[in-house]
Amino acid sequence: MVDIATRVYNHKWKIDPIIRSLIDTDFYKLLMCQSVFRNRPDTNVRFSLINRTKSIRLAELIDEGELREQLDHVRSLSLTRGESTWLRGNTFYGKRQMFRPDFMEFLEGLRLPPYQLEKRDGQYELTFEGRWPEVMLWEIPALAILMELRSRAVLKDLGRFELQVLYARAMTRLWEKVQALHDLPDLRIADFGTRRRHGFLWQDWCVQAMIEGLAERFTGTSNCLIAMRRDIEAIGTNAHELPMVYAALADSDAELRQAPYEVLADWHEEHDGNLRIILPDTYGTEGFLAGAPDWLAGWTGIRIDSGDPATGAETAIRWWQERGEDPRSKLVIFSDGLDVGKIIELHHQFHGRVKVSFGWGTLLTNDFRGLVPGDGLAPFSLVCKAVAANGRPTVKLSDNPAKATGPAEAIERYKRVFGVHHQTVQEVLV
Amino acid sequence: MVDIATRVYNHKWKIDPIIRSLIDTDFYKLLMCQSVFRNRPDTNVRFSLINRTKSIRLAELIDEGELREQLDHVRSLSLTRGESTWLRGNTFYGKRQMFRPDFMEFLEGLRLPPYQLEKRDGQYELTFEGRWPEVMLWEIPALAILMELRSRAVLKDLGRFELQVLYARAMTRLWEKVQALHDLPDLRIADFGTRRRHGFLWQDWCVQAMIEGLAERFTGTSNCLIAMRRDIEAIGTNAHELPMVYAALADSDAELRQAPYEVLADWHEEHDGNLRIILPDTYGTEGFLAGAPDWLAGWTGIRIDSGDPATGAETAIRWWQERGEDPRSKLVIFSDGLDVGKIIELHHQFHGRVKVSFGWGTLLTNDFRGLVPGDGLAPFSLVCKAVAANGRPTVKLSDNPAKATGPAEAIERYKRVFGVHHQTVQEVLV
Repeated sequence: MVDIATRVYNHKWKIDPIIRSLIDTDFYKLLMCQSVFRNRPDTNVRFSLINRTKSIRLAELIDEGELREQLDHVRSLSLTRGESTWLRGNTFYGKRQMFRPDFMEFLEGLRLPPYQLEKRDGQYELTFEGRWPEVMLWEIPALAILMELRSRAVLKDLGRFELQVLYARAMTRLWEKVQALHDLPDLRIADFGTRRRHGFLWQDWCVQAMIEGLAERFTGTSNCLIAMRRDIEAIGTNAHELPMVYAALADSDAELRQAPYEVLADWHEEHDGNLRIILPDTYGTEGFLAGAPDWLAGWTGIRIDSGDPATGAETAIRWWQERGEDPRSKLVIFSDGLDVGKIIELHHQFHGRVKVSFGWGTLLTNDFRGLVPGDGLAPFSLVCKAVAANGRPTVKLSDNPAKATGPAEAIERYKRVFGVHHQTVQEVLV
Repeated sequence: MVDIATRVYNHKWKIDPIIRSLIDTDFYKLLMCQSVFRNRPDTNVRFSLINRTKSIRLAELIDEGELREQLDHVRSLSLTRGESTWLRGNTFYGKRQMFRPDFMEFLEGLRLPPYQLEKRDGQYELTFEGRWPEVMLWEIPALAILMELRSRAVLKDLGRFELQVLYARAMTRLWEKVQALHDLPDLRIADFGTRRRHGFLWQDWCVQAMIEGLAERFTGTSNCLIAMRRDIEAIGTNAHELPMVYAALADSDAELRQAPYEVLADWHEEHDGNLRIILPDTYGTEGFLAGAPDWLAGWTGIRIDSGDPATGAETAIRWWQERGEDPRSKLVIFSDGLDVGKIIELHHQFHGRVKVSFGWGTLLTNDFRGLVPGDGLAPFSLVCKAVAANGRPTVKLSDNPAKATGPAEAIERYKRVFGVHHQTVQEVLV
C-alpha cells in the first residue's frame, strides 16, 4: 500500500535538509558552550572552515546555492520541546541537570548567527563571527553539511542498483570492522564521527550496527540527536577551542603560558569524574604535562588527539607515575585517526596498564574508500576552527606540525612560550 | 509517518506466503502444460521431491506444520484476472496468443491438486499424483517453498544487522558478477533461477540488478510473475519431463526409441522460431543426435543441460555441419550449473561460432555460499521430477550419470535401447 500522506509530505520539501536539529551536534560542544556561556560569554570569535585536502575542490563539486540553502535551513532551527526536555532531564555521565537552567534558557532561545560565504581558488571560504557561545555551535553542522553535500555530489549520477551495492559494500566493511573488535577484552569504544560523516542516516546506521555488534562494549555516541533517539549515552568532554581562545585572549607571555591551565581550572570547578579529561596537546603535550599543577594529575584521564598515539599514552603514564598516581586507575582516550588495526594494536599495548577508551571518528562514519571510481568518496581533512578571538589570531600547535594552525609569526611565539621544539610530522588523513 | 493500514495489513497474515501467485513459476512449465493439455491430457503422473544432497536433512531444518501451511496456501491460489489478461494478451517470443483459449480456460479454473507429505530419514517425501497438466505445475512452487523455508530456518536466529549485512554481502557479490559480465560482446543471458532461489524477493532483486547492470544483454527471466511485474521477456522452452513421460508410456523398445522425437514432433507442430530448441540429453546427447530426423537439424538451437558443456556444444556444432546446417545461424543455450567464470569461458569459446545464450540459475539467485557460519545457506541439489506415468517408472539418463534417475533395471534397459555406454561423472552442485 502506498502511504499517500508520506509521499506527499516527502515531496513537499524544497530541500532535503542535512541538519534537521540543533542537537545534531557533538555533546562536547554543548558542554563547552555552557562553560563559555558562564566564563567568557562576551568574547567575540571568528570560526573558519579549512579544507586541508586542497586537491578536493569543494567549490567545484558543491553548488553554492545548495550550500546556502542548507546553511540557511540550519539558521531556521531552534531547540524543540522534546530536545530541551531531554537535555534538562536526562543523565549525562551519571549526572542529572548537567545543563544549568540559565544555559538552557539561552539554548532554547538560540538561533545560529549569520555566516559569510565566498569562493576562492576552488574552495569555499565560510566564516562565522560573533559571540563565542553562539558562533561555536556552527562548527559541527557546517562540517556535516559540507561532508554530506560532497557525498551527494559524487553520488548523484549513480544508478539505483549501483547505489544499493555501494551501501551494501560500505555496510559489509563496517560490519567486518565491528566483528574484528568484538572479542577485545574490556573494549570501550564510542562514536566520534559526526563532523566527518558520510551523512546523517549513515552515521545513525553505524551507531545501530555498533549497538547490535558490540553491545556493552559500545559506550555511546558523541551525537546528541542520535544518543537521544537511540537511547544511548552521549559522549564527549572538551576540545582545543577552549585553550586556543583563552590563549588568544592572554595579554602577556606569562598569561599565555597559564591559559591552558586556566581552561582546566574553570572545567575543574564545573565537572568531576569522567568529564575530567585532559586534552594536553594544544601547545605540545610534553611541556603541558611538565608544567601542570598537581591537581591536574588527580584528574580521571587524558585524551590523545595528535602525534603518535602510543608515544602520547606512554608519556601520560610516565607523568602519572612521576606525580604519584596509579596509571591503572586512569583513563586514556584515543581519538585521532583511528581505524580497526590501530585500535586493536593500541588496545593490546595498553590494556591492563591503564583504562583504555576509543573515540572512533571518520573511519567509522565515513569509510567509503575505494567504493566509487576515482575514489571520490574517500574521507578528507576538513575542519572548522576558531581563528580569532577579540581580534587576535588563535594558534594551535598540537603534537603534529601538520596539524598546526595560525599565522606563522604567532606560531613561532607560541613555540617559544610553550617550549615546543622538534616535532615529528604525521600524515593527516582526516 | 507510520502507515497504519499497511502495518495492520502486514500483521494480519497468518503466514508469510512464499508462493503468492500461480504464475510465480517458470514460463516453460506453462508452455509444456499447454502441450500436455493438448496431446496427453489424461496421463496419470506422479511427481516426487528428491533431495540429492543427503547431508542437508530438510525434515530436521523445516517444521512440518510450516511446510504444510505453505503448500496449502498454494492450493488456495487461482489465476487472477490480471495474470490471465497478461497470459492472453502479452507477446511471448514475438507471438501473440501463445496460449490458446481452451488452455487459458483450463488454467483459469485450475487449483493445484492435493499433495502427500511424509518424513523419512530426515528428509521429506513429498509427492503429487494426478492428471499430468495439473500435477506438473507443482514442481516449481514445491521447490521454491522448500528452498525458501530452508533459508528462513537458517536465518531465523540472526540479528537485525547481521541480516542486513548478509544481504549487503550477497548484493555486492551479485553486482560484482554482473559487472564481470558487462563487457562480454553480444552477451545474451537470462534468469533461470526460480526453482532454487534463496527467496522470491531476492530473485526479484537479482532480476532488477541484471536489468540495470546488463541492459539489453539481459534477455529476460523464466519467472512469469517477475516478467509481468518488471515488464520484461518471459523465457523458456521445454524440459526433460516431456521425453521422460512420453518414454514411460511407450509400449515397446521401438516405441521407446522414438519417444524423444515424438515429443519434438508435437512441439514442432505447435511452435516455431526461438521456441524450437532441442533438449537432447535426456537419454544421451550423442545417440539422440545421431538418430534424429533431418527436420530436427532445421530447428533454431539446442540447450546443453548436463555433461561437460563445451563438449556438448562441440557435439552439436559437428552435428549441424554433418547435416549441412550453418552453426553460425544456430543458437546454443547453456543452462547447467553456470557461474560467471564458466559463462565467460564458454562465451569466449563459442562466440562467433554459434549464437550463444545463457540460462543462469542457482548461482544467480542463490549464491549465499560462505555467508553464514557452517555455510548453512549454500545451495544444494533439490529436484522435483516425474517419477511415474500411468503406473510405469520414468527414467532420465542425461549426459552425467550423477544426474540419472529411475529404478536401476529400468536405467539398464534405457541405456541399452538408447545405446548409452561410457559417461563421465560430473559433480552435481545444484
